[in-house]
Amino acid sequence: MPKLAIIGLGLIGGSLGLALKRAGLKNLEIAGFDAEWGVAPRAKRMDAIDTDARDLPSAVEGAALVVIATPISRVAEVFEKIAPSLGEGAVVTDTASAKRGVLRDAQRLLPEHVSFVGGHPVAGKEHSGLDAAEAGLFDGRAWAMTPSLDATDKAIKAVENMILLTGAQPLVIDADEHDSYMAAVSHLPLIVSTALFSLALGSNAWEDLALLAGPGFRDLTRLASTDPELSRDIIAANRDNVLHWLDRMIEELSSARRLIADEEQGAALADLFSNIQAARNKFIESPPVRAPREQQTDRTTTGERMLSFMVGDFLARKAKEIERTTREAEGRSR
Amino acid sequence: MPKLAIIGLGLIGGSLGLALKRAGLKNLEIAGFDAEWGVAPRAKRMDAIDTDARDLPSAVEGAALVVIATPISRVAEVFEKIAPSLGEGAVVTDTASAKRGVLRDAQRLLPEHVSFVGGHPVAGKEHSGLDAAEAGLFDGRAWAMTPSLDATDKAIKAVENMILLTGAQPLVIDADEHDSYMAAVSHLPLIVSTALFSLALGSNAWEDLALLAGPGFRDLTRLASTDPELSRDIIAANRDNVLHWLDRMIEELSSARRLIADEEQGAALADLFSNIQAARNKFIESPPVRAPREQQTDRTTTGERMLSFMVGDFLARKAKEIERTTREAEGRSR
Repeated sequence: MPKLAIIGLGLIGGSLGLALKRAGLKNLEIAGFDAEWGVAPRAKRMDAIDTDARDLPSAVEGAALVVIATPISRVAEVFEKIAPSLGEGAVVTDTASAKRGVLRDAQRLLPEHVSFVGGHPVAGKEHSGLDAAEAGLFDGRAWAMTPSLDATDKAIKAVENMILLTGAQPLVIDADEHDSYMAAVSHLPLIVSTALFSLALGSNAWEDLALLAGPGFRDLTRLASTDPELSRDIIAANRDNVLHWLDRMIEELSSARRLIADEEQGAALADLFSNIQAARNKFIESPPVRAPREQQTDRTTTGERMLSFMVGDFLARKAKEIERTTREAEGRSR
Repeated sequence: MPKLAIIGLGLIGGSLGLALKRAGLKNLEIAGFDAEWGVAPRAKRMDAIDTDARDLPSAVEGAALVVIATPISRVAEVFEKIAPSLGEGAVVTDTASAKRGVLRDAQRLLPEHVSFVGGHPVAGKEHSGLDAAEAGLFDGRAWAMTPSLDATDKAIKAVENMILLTGAQPLVIDADEHDSYMAAVSHLPLIVSTALFSLALGSNAWEDLALLAGPGFRDLTRLASTDPELSRDIIAANRDNVLHWLDRMIEELSSARRLIADEEQGAALADLFSNIQAARNKFIESPPVRAPREQQTDRTTTGERMLSFMVGDFLARKAKEIERTTREAEGRSR
């Protein structure tokens, strides 16, 4: 039976397992591993994985597809530890929210007979960890793919099929662009949200501010509840882009400040609010879609395609192993 | 039958009518007026009001309590228009989200035989207008009260009881403080939200940014969908406080920028994220509760006669029931 391994069973890894299970793939073994004691057995009880591996090597051994869903600061370490156990033609992907560094590490640390296709599901919640995992987490979300230069077409297809099975929309993108864009729509909002809460909290009047804070304040500061380790790691992994967008945000606020301070500019301010409202309403009411219709085949078909790929690959790998064994035997006999 | 008039039947005015109806007041006439043609009859069909007045004077004539729920830029005009029709001892309140200017206008424009008690329900939604109105809009929300200097105790009690009937928590506060605090927790978030969306929208890569934007970006930019007239009016009415907090936000972001730029400061950055996460989680999990205990005890013992001011014992009983339920809910949530 083809095997898929999930390394790291938090919100993303756990939800991935549940989403793949929801897709109803019966001929796929999902192995899971988590560095924290007791997490993998719990994921198994939740039916997010089929087998809980006792260590990293046994988790990835014989796996056609390996998904690394650990915190971004651990990805390189996982590459190193699994490298010796990855089979010929195995496909490795990840879920980290900055991609340039991960691609560099994959190039440096993974063996040549492996294809790396970076991945980043644009999904999240206020709460992290396995307990927050849910099968529908990726439904309708974008899932960025950043294939390495030497990833095979088959490997890219395998990851794309897995993404489609979760209900997400695969989106191939250059890693540098990905990191810059994510700084704008995810990492900057995280910093802004944190700064907004920090500002209110630091006020002498915090107790009264908190009483008056309504749903708007709650929404705007939601990201301030992000797991702090995750926040720090993301920013460390994408520092230049974050600083670029943070500078632009400070400029944007300074320019809004000038408009607000000048009473003569009431009309310009009203126009700004109008234009932004219209653009945001459009963005919410008809969110942009990349995937052409034909690509959005139904899940069963996608599942079959993924399985057939994996099975095919499995057989190919087996055949190569037999070939190598035969060659080695020939060598010895000479 | 005692009469309550609601001027302006948008999200707030409409929801107020529905909330008062939900409280089951049978011996109260709720009259409604809206400057836009057709809105008041629609409010009547929705059972948010009992009678739709044909003009402002007839709406407030004979009303014991008048609630002005128009856009803030219209409040002074409404004061002027209703002044001649307000009866002896009538109580006027409003729902505008900045209070200093409204109090000044009330002082200047309302007759001396009327008590003005400023009001501001801290509730809102992405959508505005009567169609978005709902009876539960104010449940558990703070509703700030800023009584004018010469408002009678009876008038303050009447507004407080109306607020309790909607399910909100009345909170008496100085108008200057109110405006400064609202600038921090509501008006600044509005500007930040708008600036964040504007920044992404203005990028050459907007189409790709939009594809990658996840739930975090949506939440953080929710306030950018605020009715632009409302945004402009609020900022015009609270300009000094808004500029003050906007300056502090720019400083906060600049200081975050320095921390992020310095790789040596990783630990300090991690601490910042940790502290803010802990504080926000506390804020969400056990939101602050106002009301000093003694004030509530006092109300149950000596407040009874005052409550009979507007709609008699029935209203007094209802208000007390709701207050008790709220207090019990508060007890439970602790």
